[in-house]
Amino acid sequence: EEEPDQPIPELPDFFVGKRFFLYGEFPSQERRLLNRYITAFSGEVEGYMNERVNYVITAQEWDDTFEEALNDNANLSFVRPRWIYACNQRQRLIPHQPYVVVPQA
Amino acid sequence: EEEPDQPIPELPDFFVGKRFFLYGEFPSQERRLLNRYITAFSGEVEGYMNERVNYVITAQEWDDTFEEALNDNANLSFVRPRWIYACNQRQRLIPHQPYVVVPQA
Repeated sequence: EEEPDQPIPELPDFFVGKRFFLYGEFPSQERRLLNRYITAFSGEVEGYMNERVNYVITAQEWDDTFEEALNDNANLSFVRPRWIYACNQRQRLIPHQPYVVVPQA
Repeated sequence: EEEPDQPIPELPDFFVGKRFFLYGEFPSQERRLLNRYITAFSGEVEGYMNERVNYVITAQEWDDTFEEALNDNANLSFVRPRWIYACNQRQRLIPHQPYVVVPQA
């Protein structure tokens, strides 16, 4: 049997158990990158909005569909892509609250 | 025994199980009013910040102490007083997400 010369680097799994939905339009390649990061760190990317989603990631502004989603799923958080990138940069789960999307004044 | 002539109006208890902390300065009388609404609807108002708090209600802007609080209590939400007033107006729990406090750009 052949042993590896170096330890196999592990991907951290800090998104385990969390489910994400990527909502709306994203700048070119950003949707793909978000999908990669979320999946790499053991998060689930849902193909459609459903009641199991924990985090809606969006680059857009608050819209009326968010209120409807909250009626079905009271624990949703609407969060900017920057949160995902920040978690990757720190290689751990960081609080999402500073990156939350709220209605414009 | 004397029976009431009219049914005793019940206070709704939609804040049951939820714990609140009122953070920072509030306009005159507003802290008292928030305490009354939260308590009326069966919420608990904590006298100091602790890990059981679910919602920090504040009229102020995001500050660094919020990040510290999140390190101890990852599920905190920072919410404007308007949310409490809106729940009272509707006489039911409405989503807090549109009323969340985020760092200023």
